[in-house]
Amino acid sequence: MDNHNRTPVTVLGLGLMGRALASAFLRAGHPTTVWNRTASKAEGLVAEGATAAGSVADAVAASPLVVVCLTDHAAVRDVLDATGGWDGRVLVNLTSGTARDAGDLAAWAERQGAAYLDGAIMAAPDVIGGDATIVYSGPRAVYDAQAATLLSLGSGARHLGEDPTLTALHETAALSLMWNMLNGFLHGVALLKAAGVDASSFAPLAVQGVETVAAWLPGYARQVDDGEYPGLDSSLNTHVAAMRHLVETSEALGVSAELPKLIEDIAGRAVAEGRGGEGYAVLVEQFAKP
Amino acid sequence: MDNHNRTPVTVLGLGLMGRALASAFLRAGHPTTVWNRTASKAEGLVAEGATAAGSVADAVAASPLVVVCLTDHAAVRDVLDATGGWDGRVLVNLTSGTARDAGDLAAWAERQGAAYLDGAIMAAPDVIGGDATIVYSGPRAVYDAQAATLLSLGSGARHLGEDPTLTALHETAALSLMWNMLNGFLHGVALLKAAGVDASSFAPLAVQGVETVAAWLPGYARQVDDGEYPGLDSSLNTHVAAMRHLVETSEALGVSAELPKLIEDIAGRAVAEGRGGEGYAVLVEQFAKP
Repeated sequence: MDNHNRTPVTVLGLGLMGRALASAFLRAGHPTTVWNRTASKAEGLVAEGATAAGSVADAVAASPLVVVCLTDHAAVRDVLDATGGWDGRVLVNLTSGTARDAGDLAAWAERQGAAYLDGAIMAAPDVIGGDATIVYSGPRAVYDAQAATLLSLGSGARHLGEDPTLTALHETAALSLMWNMLNGFLHGVALLKAAGVDASSFAPLAVQGVETVAAWLPGYARQVDDGEYPGLDSSLNTHVAAMRHLVETSEALGVSAELPKLIEDIAGRAVAEGRGGEGYAVLVEQFAKP
Repeated sequence: MDNHNRTPVTVLGLGLMGRALASAFLRAGHPTTVWNRTASKAEGLVAEGATAAGSVADAVAASPLVVVCLTDHAAVRDVLDATGGWDGRVLVNLTSGTARDAGDLAAWAERQGAAYLDGAIMAAPDVIGGDATIVYSGPRAVYDAQAATLLSLGSGARHLGEDPTLTALHETAALSLMWNMLNGFLHGVALLKAAGVDASSFAPLAVQGVETVAAWLPGYARQVDDGEYPGLDSSLNTHVAAMRHLVETSEALGVSAELPKLIEDIAGRAVAEGRGGEGYAVLVEQFAKP
């Protein structure tokens, strides 16, 4: 592969995801420098053509674009504190963290004279370099200048906006969705197990139900943006009646009713405010309250 | 279409779903009798070839297979109390309700000398007669004898088991999943709105996240059935650390932290029991407790 036109890149952190990132850069023809605290993690990548830096400072000095992907932001600060010479370089952080972590790191990069992009990988390591979605936030001009290189990591690269904390916020919102969804599944599984039904017999129905509900989300999002929640399919009143059944069934089967009761409470508050004839998405107004 | 070999059917209740059911029977060539308390709802179906019964008793008398699809079980009992002559007929209930409702209706059918199947429609009215999934429970022999007719309503018909309450239990579990998923989405949307981000900009990421998580469910179900929850991708400890971020971000943005705190509490209890090194599905043991 002709490497002469490819931006040299550095990857700091060679866990499962960091190795996938470095490998994708190598496959796309980028001269790739790698560093990890435990140096042996670099061996496979060196065999693929990477250069293992002797120190993190050397790794930063090797490339105009530096990607960092570590366990958490504490590790990021710890590693970056041993570096210098950032002026004119681009730091791309792919370590998960809070919006505040991202803001702090953006401020650090600014003090070093580096441009900063914050990114979140919405994919498993095995699709990095393929159709992985990675979302980024930070200055649009910086993103545009690096987009060709960042596309080597996943064809689903997307810029969310100028504010570097946007990525972490989107990731936090996506995690809220993920945990609630998994809890709903596991609570349903607990209900069925209490009645002697295997989880595996429920899984295909659960997947189908999830796909049905996923198709509603863009429409619900438009309702939220419009501030109008027409009860087209079914009203919140109908949901609340069925929520009572969920609480009663949980109690009758000796399964935790804690989550069902909170679901019923939240919806019940919206009904008490006279919103029972509206659609489910009206509950966003309950979640928006402290 | 040659109707001579098709079982005559009756549909009681002509709401949006009931009309879709009757229409699918007609398209498949079943002689179809319909009844609704407000008789005008039958007009379109009569134009398609249905026979409108003058009374619910006449409607039941017209066919060996009677499908009932009303608003709720109270309406079902109210309507069925005006009927008789059930001996040897099959009652298929497609009205949503609790497992107890289904058990009560099965007992009523037995007293009348009728066979009983309980069903749940996991699809919207517009796919009835197409690839709609409808799950049924009740005696296997009754299901098998009626399967050809029931397939007219949806090619995804499936028998869950002999116990007539199984369908309602599966539906309740699927609703738990649905509400939790929607709440997670709306809470995430509330977070982003508080930071000035439109819900519609989050929706594509949310849908993608949901599809990713949906693919994990069959594997998690196997873990639950095996009673072993290896932390292959990430451990509960990792999740709990990120849950703290969700609580903090919610509080910082002035959004409800009630649901995030419960999520953190439930996971924290599992960690306190020494399960932090295991995978997320270990939480099923928390949900299984009263």
